[in-house]
Amino acid sequence: MKPKGPPRGPIDRKIPPGDNRERLVCNDCGFIHYENPKLVVGAVIEADDGRILLCKRAIEPSHGLWTIPAGFMELQETPLDGAMREAQEEACATIAIDALLAIYSIPRISQVQMIYRAKLVGTAFSAGTESLEVKLFSWNDIPWENLAFPSVHWALLQFEQMKDKNDFAPLGNPVH
Amino acid sequence: MKPKGPPRGPIDRKIPPGDNRERLVCNDCGFIHYENPKLVVGAVIEADDGRILLCKRAIEPSHGLWTIPAGFMELQETPLDGAMREAQEEACATIAIDALLAIYSIPRISQVQMIYRAKLVGTAFSAGTESLEVKLFSWNDIPWENLAFPSVHWALLQFEQMKDKNDFAPLGNPVH
Repeated sequence: MKPKGPPRGPIDRKIPPGDNRERLVCNDCGFIHYENPKLVVGAVIEADDGRILLCKRAIEPSHGLWTIPAGFMELQETPLDGAMREAQEEACATIAIDALLAIYSIPRISQVQMIYRAKLVGTAFSAGTESLEVKLFSWNDIPWENLAFPSVHWALLQFEQMKDKNDFAPLGNPVH
Repeated sequence: MKPKGPPRGPIDRKIPPGDNRERLVCNDCGFIHYENPKLVVGAVIEADDGRILLCKRAIEPSHGLWTIPAGFMELQETPLDGAMREAQEEACATIAIDALLAIYSIPRISQVQMIYRAKLVGTAFSAGTESLEVKLFSWNDIPWENLAFPSVHWALLQFEQMKDKNDFAPLGNPVH
């Protein structure tokens, strides 16, 4: 069976008729392979005692640094389902999402991140295959110098800022 | 010059080591072509007199039906830039975005839509190449029976619902 997917013929970058920018076009069949930004979904997860769950990354990039559970959305899921799946995969944690905390846009790498605010359900968690360690941190113990990505830093600060707020417009990239 | 892009070798669907779902993998070089949901960005655009801007589609799907300006996000842009670009491309309209109205998730087609609330800047607009016609509609004249997609219907109703609200959590798919 012919696998579904990108074209197999020789591919060129050219502007298809009626378009205004270069696309990847198959010279054999004319198939246009559109490239679009990717969505990352994740959550700042708070335990009952107010501590925050972080994962030490077992994979590159940022191996050994701390992150909130987050990752690329998969086909045929919703952003909420994706954020719950990432918590499960990276921290074996069940979460209850209560708000969309922030939407970050990182055009340089064509990425949009939707970061939710969530509660840890129950007390169970452990390192998934992509994590070396999963741990709850009180605010003052957060390893600020060893966070994996700038957006983890942003999300934690904005989580603290919006702690007592409900029904708010999601925050965005901090303005420098 | 070798064009950047998807692999040229024979491609199979298989589960790469350390992964838990099938990906498109090049048998020659091992390149993994990840497929992820696509982001659509758009805006409900209100003119000074309260009328709403709609475009009659000149392309499939839904040729000849009415839509708000919206489309797939391009690489290296932000969602806001994308929504403004779509208004420009489809309706030759300059807009000022004031809120994220809604985020719709359509997992069946692996699509996430971010729909903004915007004001038409100035009074100029006209049909772009993807539109047959662009028109301002008062609420009672909106062609409800001839809207291009369910999410256009949702966005218009939610726009009306949130008209006087600020700093709100974006709405989502209507609950049936």
